[in-house]
Order: sequence, then C-alpha cells, then structure tokens
Amino acid sequence: MIITIEKSMDERKRKELIENLEKKGVEVLYQEGFDYDVLLLTENAGAMNEADIRIVDGVIDVFSKMSYHLASREFKKDDTIVDVAGVLVGGNQPLALIAGPCSVENKESIEEMAIQVRKAGATMLRGGAFKPRTSPYAFQGLGKQGLLDLEEAGKKANLPIVSEIVSEEDIDLFENHVDMLQIGARNMQNYSLLKAVGRSQKPVLLKRGLSATVEEWILAAEYILKEGNPNVIFCERGIRTFEKSTRSTLDLSSIPVLKEKTHLPVIVDPSHAAGNWRYVKSLSLAAVACGADGLIVEVHDHPQFALSDGAQSLTIDHYQQLVEEVSKVAQAVGRNIVK
Amino acid sequence: MIITIEKSMDERKRKELIENLEKKGVEVLYQEGFDYDVLLLTENAGAMNEADIRIVDGVIDVFSKMSYHLASREFKKDDTIVDVAGVLVGGNQPLALIAGPCSVENKESIEEMAIQVRKAGATMLRGGAFKPRTSPYAFQGLGKQGLLDLEEAGKKANLPIVSEIVSEEDIDLFENHVDMLQIGARNMQNYSLLKAVGRSQKPVLLKRGLSATVEEWILAAEYILKEGNPNVIFCERGIRTFEKSTRSTLDLSSIPVLKEKTHLPVIVDPSHAAGNWRYVKSLSLAAVACGADGLIVEVHDHPQFALSDGAQSLTIDHYQQLVEEVSKVAQAVGRNIVK
Amino acid sequence: MIITIEKSMDERKRKELIENLEKKGVEVLYQEGFDYDVLLLTENAGAMNEADIRIVDGVIDVFSKMSYHLASREFKKDDTIVDVAGVLVGGNQPLALIAGPCSVENKESIEEMAIQVRKAGATMLRGGAFKPRTSPYAFQGLGKQGLLDLEEAGKKANLPIVSEIVSEEDIDLFENHVDMLQIGARNMQNYSLLKAVGRSQKPVLLKRGLSATVEEWILAAEYILKEGNPNVIFCERGIRTFEKSTRSTLDLSSIPVLKEKTHLPVIVDPSHAAGNWRYVKSLSLAAVACGADGLIVEVHDHPQFALSDGAQSLTIDHYQQLVEEVSKVAQAVGRNIVK
Amino acid sequence: MIITIEKSMDERKRKELIENLEKKGVEVLYQEGFDYDVLLLTENAGAMNEADIRIVDGVIDVFSKMSYHLASREFKKDDTIVDVAGVLVGGNQPLALIAGPCSVENKESIEEMAIQVRKAGATMLRGGAFKPRTSPYAFQGLGKQGLLDLEEAGKKANLPIVSEIVSEEDIDLFENHVDMLQIGARNMQNYSLLKAVGRSQKPVLLKRGLSATVEEWILAAEYILKEGNPNVIFCERGIRTFEKSTRSTLDLSSIPVLKEKTHLPVIVDPSHAAGNWRYVKSLSLAAVACGADGLIVEVHDHPQFALSDGAQSLTIDHYQQLVEEVSKVAQAVGRNIVK
Repeated sequence: MIITIEKSMDERKRKELIENLEKKGVEVLYQEGFDYDVLLLTENAGAMNEADIRIVDGVIDVFSKMSYHLASREFKKDDTIVDVAGVLVGGNQPLALIAGPCSVENKESIEEMAIQVRKAGATMLRGGAFKPRTSPYAFQGLGKQGLLDLEEAGKKANLPIVSEIVSEEDIDLFENHVDMLQIGARNMQNYSLLKAVGRSQKPVLLKRGLSATVEEWILAAEYILKEGNPNVIFCERGIRTFEKSTRSTLDLSSIPVLKEKTHLPVIVDPSHAAGNWRYVKSLSLAAVACGADGLIVEVHDHPQFALSDGAQSLTIDHYQQLVEEVSKVAQAVGRNIVK
Repeated sequence: MIITIEKSMDERKRKELIENLEKKGVEVLYQEGFDYDVLLLTENAGAMNEADIRIVDGVIDVFSKMSYHLASREFKKDDTIVDVAGVLVGGNQPLALIAGPCSVENKESIEEMAIQVRKAGATMLRGGAFKPRTSPYAFQGLGKQGLLDLEEAGKKANLPIVSEIVSEEDIDLFENHVDMLQIGARNMQNYSLLKAVGRSQKPVLLKRGLSATVEEWILAAEYILKEGNPNVIFCERGIRTFEKSTRSTLDLSSIPVLKEKTHLPVIVDPSHAAGNWRYVKSLSLAAVACGADGLIVEVHDHPQFALSDGAQSLTIDHYQQLVEEVSKVAQAVGRNIVK
Repeated sequence: MIITIEKSMDERKRKELIENLEKKGVEVLYQEGFDYDVLLLTENAGAMNEADIRIVDGVIDVFSKMSYHLASREFKKDDTIVDVAGVLVGGNQPLALIAGPCSVENKESIEEMAIQVRKAGATMLRGGAFKPRTSPYAFQGLGKQGLLDLEEAGKKANLPIVSEIVSEEDIDLFENHVDMLQIGARNMQNYSLLKAVGRSQKPVLLKRGLSATVEEWILAAEYILKEGNPNVIFCERGIRTFEKSTRSTLDLSSIPVLKEKTHLPVIVDPSHAAGNWRYVKSLSLAAVACGADGLIVEVHDHPQFALSDGAQSLTIDHYQQLVEEVSKVAQAVGRNIVK
Repeated sequence: MIITIEKSMDERKRKELIENLEKKGVEVLYQEGFDYDVLLLTENAGAMNEADIRIVDGVIDVFSKMSYHLASREFKKDDTIVDVAGVLVGGNQPLALIAGPCSVENKESIEEMAIQVRKAGATMLRGGAFKPRTSPYAFQGLGKQGLLDLEEAGKKANLPIVSEIVSEEDIDLFENHVDMLQIGARNMQNYSLLKAVGRSQKPVLLKRGLSATVEEWILAAEYILKEGNPNVIFCERGIRTFEKSTRSTLDLSSIPVLKEKTHLPVIVDPSHAAGNWRYVKSLSLAAVACGADGLIVEVHDHPQFALSDGAQSLTIDHYQQLVEEVSKVAQAVGRNIVK
C-alpha cells in the first residue's frame, strides 16, 4: 500500500498516523517526494480499510490492491482443471457443453431433453429446480422433486448435472443429488451461501453478479476457496448496463482478464445474456473464440411453451447446429469438443 | 397485456397463439390495426412470461407491466406507517433518524455511541454484527455477541435497534434481539432470505440492490409482503454507475417514484452512497427535501480507527450539526423531527 | 505520479525507463519498498500517458491524478460568480432560476411565457432554437428565427436568455443575440465546440454528458477556461444508468464534489433528468438543499401540445408553486431567491 | 403507436385527445379492452413525442418504436457493401483489416508502419491527425500536416486511409485527402457533424458513443443516410459500464442485433475497448466469430513511446500473429481475409 501525504502535513499527525499503522502490524517507510511525500507500507494490510486512512487530515490518497490469494495466478500458476463427475473442465480439456431447459418442468420432458442434448453433443445437463424469480408470482420451480427428476434424467443420458442452489438449508439435498452446484447471479454476494458451498466438495459454478466487477467476482470465488473447496468455475452471463436490445451485456473481455489473473476455468452463458435465442449462436462462437472453457446454453423442446425463459431457449435442432459450428471455431483456436 | 402481431401472420398460427393463451386462463380480444394487428389480453396473466410470447413467429412485440399488488398504491391508498418498537416511520410522522457505527466493535463503545447519538437527536440505533464484506479477509463482524451488545446499548439509550441479517439461519436470533431487520443491498434478491423475514413480524428495512431497478426493488418488497409481513421500509443507498467520485450514485429520484407507486415509507442512507463523510450532510439535506421519511447515517466516535467504513462515518459533532440543519429543511417541506 | 515496479525488474530496463521519463522533462526518484519498489515523479507530467508506462515490462502500476488547473480550487480559492447580463450566479448570490420552454415555438408564445415565468419568479429565460434530437425526423427547432424571437421575448420580460449552441458555425449568431451559451449533454466532449465558446466572452452553461464522470466534466470546463473564457457554470442533468423509471439518474452528489474540487457555480436541470413533470418539484427542492446555485426548469403554457419534451414541462401554476417551495428550502440552507 | 387509457377516462377528454392526434395527421382507432381501453394509431407519427401524450390525464401508457427507415432491413433487405477506395466492406467480402497507430507522429514513422501493417495483412491504414482528448493538455494531434503524412503513407503502401474528423470546418480537407471519414465516440451525437459528413460522398466509419444504445446509434447513422450518403459502417468500440478492468466494455451482442435490424456493415475496435494490448487478440477473434465485417486495431512500432494510447497498441509482430489467427477463425465461420 502507498499513502501520499501533503508536504505541509503536521509532523505530529504524521507520526501519529505511522504509529497507528504500525500498531496494526504493518511496516511503514517514510519517503519525501517532489509535490508530496509518501508512506510505503507492506502489503499484508488485509484488515485495514484504505478509506479509513484517506480521511486523516493531510492524507491525499491511498493506493492499494484488494487482495485475493487462493484464486490468483501468483498462488497457482497452472490452470485448474475441475472434475465434474468425470467431465474435466479447464486447461486444454475439451469444451464443457452444458445444455438443458431453464427449469425442470416434468420427469418425461427432462428425460427426453437429456437424451436429445446428449445426442446433439452436450457433455453436461442443466435444469433449474429452485428458481430465483424477480416476481413472487412467477413460477418458482418444482423444488426437490425437480432435482430428483433432473438426477434421474442425468443418469439415463449419462450426463453429470448442474442446478442452482438458492438456500444454505438445501446444501445436503444438493450434495446428495447434484454433480455441480450453481450459484446464481443474484446470490454472487450472498456470503452465507458462498461459505456453505465452500464447505462442500462438489464443484461450484459461480455466475457473475449483474453489477459485479471482475475483482468482486474473484473475491466471491475466494470465499469458496478459503472454506476449502478448490473446484470453482466462473460463468460469465452478462452485466447490467443501459443497453436494452439484449437482456444483459455479455462482457467477453472478462475471459482474458480472468485467465490472466486467476487459474480457474471460465465458461459462458450466452442465453441469459442475450435473452433472445436468435443471438445465442453468435455469442457462443464469440465466447469460444475468446478463450472460454465451455458454454451453458438453454435448450427446450418447445420453447414457446416453456414455463420460464422460453424466448432465450434454442430448439434441439438449433443447438445441434450450434455445437457443429462451435466445434469448428474451437479447432480454429486450438481447442476441441468431445466427439 | 397487449400483443402486436404482423398483418401477414399465418391465420392458423394466430389461432394457435390465441388458444394457447386462453388455455392459460387469459381472455383475448383480436383487433385489426393500421400497420399491425393487436391482441388485447386481461392483465391476470401473472404466470405468463411475455418473452415466451415474443418468440412466436409473427409476434412483433408484447407490452405489459410486471405486477406487484400488495405494495402498490392501487392496493392501499394511504401511506403505511411502520411501528418500530414505538417509533413510527412514514406518513406525516417525524423523520426517522437512525444513527450508529457501521459495525459493533465492543460493548463499551457501542453503549457510549448509543447515548451520544440519542443526545444528538437520533431516534433509532444502527450497528452491524454480521457484516457482508467483499473480501473474505475483511472484518466480518462480531456475530451474536455484537448483536447482544447492540441490544443492550439500545436499551440503555432507550432506542430501538436495527441490524443486518445475512442468513436465514439467524432468523430466530434476530427476532429475539433486534427491533428491525435490515436486508442489505447484496441480499436484495436473496429470495430465500426475503421469504424468511416475510414470515417474521418484525419490521424490515429493505436496502436497494446495487443494480436493482425501482421495479425490482418493489418486487423484492412484494416477496416480503406476500409472506404476511406488512412492515417494510425502503432504503435508498445508491446504485452502481460508472461515476467514481462517490462510492455509489445516490438516486434520489427513487423517492418520488416510490411514493407514487407504493404506500411504503422510504428512508435514505447517504453514508454508503457517498463513501465519504464530507458529502453526507449535503446528501442528507437533499434527501429530506426530496421527501424521505428518514435517514440512516453512519456515526463513529473515532472514525479514523473504525474497523470498517470509517471514511464515511461522521463524528458525533458533525452528526449533531447535521440533525440541526435537517430539522430546518424538514420544516421547510412540512415535516419535522422529534425534539 | 508514482510508478510501482517489481523488485525483480531488470536493472537495465529500470534505468532505461527512468531515462525515458527524464527525457520528457520529468524528475524521477527511485525508492526501494517492501513488496515492490517505487519511482516518484514530479507531477508536471501532463503530456505523458500513464497507460504507456504501464506496459513496460516490470512496471506493476501507475498512480496519478488527471490534471486540471484553471478549474481547480487550488488555482482559485474563492467561488467564481458569473455575471449573466446582470444576473449573478454562484457564491452566496440568490439562486439562478432559469425557466422556459424546451423549444421556442413561435413569437407570441415565447413572449407570453417569458412574462409569465418572470412573474412566477424566474430570473432568466431558456428556450431552444437549435435542437439536437435523437431522431433526424423529430422537430429540430426554428433555428435563427427562434433565437431572435427568444431575444425579443427576453427583452420584453427583462430577462437574460440562455440557449443551446450546436455548431461552431453559429458562434457569431449566438454572441450577438444570446446572454449565455449552453453546451448540451451530447456535445460535452465536442472539443471543437468547447474551444469555440472558450474564445467567446459570453458565459457558458456546460451540461454534463450522459456518461461523463465528474472529472471528465471538469476537464471539459478546463477546455473552455484554457481558451480564455472564465465564465463557466456547470449544469447537472442526470447520467445514464440502467434505471428506467426516470429518463436519466440525477446525480446530486456531483454538487458537493464539484464544490470541493472547483470554484465554479453549479446549477441543476431536474426536468431532463426526470423526464416526467411529476418528479420535478421534489428534485428541485433536493437540488437546492444539496447546495445548487440555481435551477433550470422546463415550463410550458400547454405542455400537452408542446413540440418537444412536453411530458417533463411544468405549467406556469406548477412552476410558481415550485418557486415558493424552493424559496423556503433555500432559506433553510442559508440561501435565498430574488423577490 | 398504441395508447392505453383508463376505462374511467372522461369522455370529453378522450375525444379531445383523439382530435388533437388527428390534427397532427394521424389516424386513430378506439377499442375497448378488458382492464383498460386502447387507441391504435398509424405509425407515421414521427413528429409526435409519446411523452407528450403520456401526461394527458387518463392516459396510462404509450407504446411505440422510434423510427429509422433508411438504415433498416425493412428498407433494404440485402447487405450494403461499402467501397472504400476499392476495398469492399460488408456482405461476404473479405474482412476489412484496418491497422495503424493511434496518432500520426511523424512522416517517417507512419510510412514505415503503413508498409509493415500492409505486409502483416492489413487492408486499410488508420491514423489520427485531429485527436479528441479528455484533457486539453494532452497531445492533440498534428492536424493538417498529420493528415497529409497519412495520405502519403497510404499511397506508398497502397492502402486506403481512415482518420477521425472532429469539426465541420475540416470537411473539405478530409474530402480531399482521406478515403473514409471516422466519427469518434464522443461525436456520435454531434448532429451538425453528422449532417456535414452526410453531405459528403466519402464513406463514414461511425463509432458507437460511450453511452449510446444500439437504437440511438442506428439513428445517428440515419442522420447521415438522410443527407444522401449511403456509405456508413458501424464500429463497435465498447460502452461505458462500472467495470474497470478494461477501458470500456466491448458489447459484441451489438453485432447480431445490428445485422438483424440494419443492412449496414459492422466492424469492431478491440483496442479502445480493452485499453490493454494483452486482451486485443482474444477480443479480435471473438469479434470475427460473432460476425464482424472487419477489425480496426491499433498497431505501433514502439508502443511504449507512443504519444497516445501506447498501452493498447500491438507491435507489428503481435499484429501479424493476430491476422494469422483471425484468418483461421474467419474460415471457421465462413468468412476469409485477403491473401
């Protein structure tokens, strides 16, 4: 941490500041500068809030980096490869192709879709059983029964399953029936839930919050890692901006940024970002070209009758076509898909 | 709901669409227009997702309003007045003046501050015991002990207390020791938690999410109301924008918008919005002039040594001065404070 | 400027960097730190782009402040008071109350409105003659004739006039007929136009760009000041965010921020921010309580037949009521209006 | 346009509203609905501001689409192919690969770079001579001399040139010396300038404004088309959001949206979006996979000594590598580059 202070800062106050800092276990070096003087501190100042220093009379500014350790490239140089019930995600592994409906609607339909997305090339099955919906009057998912149906469908199609967890109280249920726990965008800073899944050993798919910076997102992953669960996969799904022609603004720049700063895999959800199935293929190809380790795509056999998010769901035919084109782009950038 | 369809829409498809809508219990009226035709629907279409209709071939657009009922002015014309352990908030009641430190740090300090903010004019005491922090390495609050210290301090100063709840599992603890439960910005769409506090009868202070629209915020309140708890107070605390000279952008327009659309009280948190104590007074006066029913302000006896959010905390002296000036502005707009 | 460099930085490269900096006329001091070393530079490094330094191998980060001089409190400690044809704006002067229609529509109507807003308490008259409209098919203003009609109306009502200039080619026309030149939000970074009005001696009302940070806004003012025109008034009119219940999000925090960092007056435009006349009064009172030096409000005698922006225009009656309430709030914060 | 009105709306007022609408040349059809009634209008209501209707007592809401005609797919079904001095852009043409330094710095350097980017695969040369800079103290470009140097460099390397125009007064200069006129992000809503380049016959590269919606961007193009210039190319360069790990947030979704709604070509500027050369390649590949018709990339022979934007400039070697990888991705999505 670096603190810039006014040359005119009262000497007694400067000493007091330095002493206060040292009391907190930080080493401090005082150096005169040209237009202002500086205090150089050791970076172990995790517990200190730079804002608290900024208000001291005579302090001009404070420069620091927020600290994550376990998630950083400095901590672990090699790409983390997450094993989701046998499907490896990250590094140079084949792309993770996760597909399925927004919500599990009934046993027959999810089983049929599982088999179809598998045929089309999917390597994992998604489906919501507990749905966080903006309106309390919207369809909230089938709950436990939905989860059991999803599990059964995954087994029949031989696909690992991923589903969103919205309450710490469901952690045992999810640990017993789901292969990867999804943290949704709305809960990215629900730290109680993050700690709960951090105590699990099941892989966690961590969606980006609608207004989360990449740094906050990495810190959310750090919460999970810190509890002992090293298996976190980031999922870029768009951020909230002023633009309204898509539901969110997919921020593909986050892929190279995350790849530089962390060692964890990154996949992309083009369906929620677009909110419109017609843009899903373009965004999927872009994500893969940009370095994504996989895609999570909403697919529905009858999108126009879906109980939620029908507009952004692809038909099976469209999904199959998407996988074919994704395969070509993957090869163009040195990746591949499972055949 | 109104659906616009192309004049060239296949007649069979149009009939199919109408039938599908009617199956869902909605009445439909077909009307030819000039450049396109329209379907007029009854507005009871709560469970329907307009996006699902939008993707039908031939559909041009769908116009609807997302529906909240219990929170709306249509449902309840008169201002709701929330009773927080004897302190009335909303309507033409005196302004709620909530003050205290970001975090409870120890028993002595919180008791001392409680007495001092009371003297300065505060009508309620705030203090965090369970802190949601961006970094897992930052001070996370004293937990249960902090809550008990806060309760004790409130009793000594004869002030109701408000504190943030971050986990459903703490609901009993909070019900037993706290007068008003605060839902923080990061948990505004943590629907499990909203439902939990909705089943409580303690008043709820619902902070706006960093990227929540006013409509989504009202729908979050609707989650609480729908569970049976009518005592919700909105708290505007700024939204996330590109501007960096303040921590968030305080959106005071939300006050007249909320007052028009809902019957619930609205208070303002200028401290978290500004992130800098020097701007807190100006924003407080603005909030009161704009129609706020109260203020929640961070006050600390030694801001520069606070364990969190020191930079945005006022000293007791500054708070006392703020209350005096707030009183004048309140009177100018036909409100007042408790003397 | 402070540059942090890795302790492992190649010595030859470090020397080369220092030499390159010194060649550009900057003094450099090298200091070893704890986790990294630092280079302290003199702050005269205006022409240097910190991004160019950041890419040098071994450089960790660069900390700097973007520099404005003429607009800063450091440069001029006292509040600037701008004289608009006899009406003084800023400091402790009475609030500037600018009112009038979005567009000048015809001679009779603007003259009538001028007299009426004057009666209601306005101290300056606004009216657009050259309108920047999002659609090329929308009403673009009456042009020169509109300006002449506005001038005539101002004379009849004895009010200075302000109108928006959208092209450098109109600078002579505006200098001859208008008392204050307005730079609209869309042109805040049209530097050719800023330089042109900077060469004028007429006061300039500089609206904030929809996505301009406060710092960029001050730098836009600096463009004008640098050309020799010291008479700049900031106008906060809302920024673009995700929120859609108002047209823009009025950022009143910018008032205390600007007051701290610069010496120039700040007024507020609640009409364009709200986009809805029903919220204009609340926001006006908030702006004055927050420290604004004035208000620019859209008023129209028949808002529902206005050729542009009718929805956000007040009737004369509403405006008169607004001025009365503004007067009370002004007094509550130690300001006043002209009686 | 559709207007929803309350069933309780005063009949006299409803008639008055209809008459007022009809006076403006709009046909109106009145239809009773379930929860409200509706007025259906012809869509030729270009000059009407829906906001003006919204404020009439009894009106609930107004639904409309902002109208662009010349830029729309409805107006012209086939892709427009723009001819930039012999290089064709759009449709199934080879990708436009525009490269060069941010600013022209001197004759020798721009000529050398022109030859090198040509060798590396570029099909057009970029270089700024008039630079819009946030700070008035930053390097503002070499002006006319820079343009002449760029022209000369383009001739030597046999590459068409593109450069940014910032003032209507420079239009003749640009028409005589430049092959494509660039409108920068800050001037996207400088309508005087848009009209000026619309009267030119030189192709226009229209960058997206930092806070422009796709719809506003298309309307900016409409300004140019309406003046008679059909040769407009969109350039996505990122929008302003809260995220700070990149300079702007590249919104690649705009590509499929623009391709659906308009017939004009779209290219992407990954350099300004990223603000960091390390992310430029990933974003370039993503843009091409997403359907972009070309890329405009900053390249500099000595990025660390560039007078502006060095940090986001690639070296020639990196650019050559980028072109090679772009070529592979282009083929994967059915496009190609010039060999």
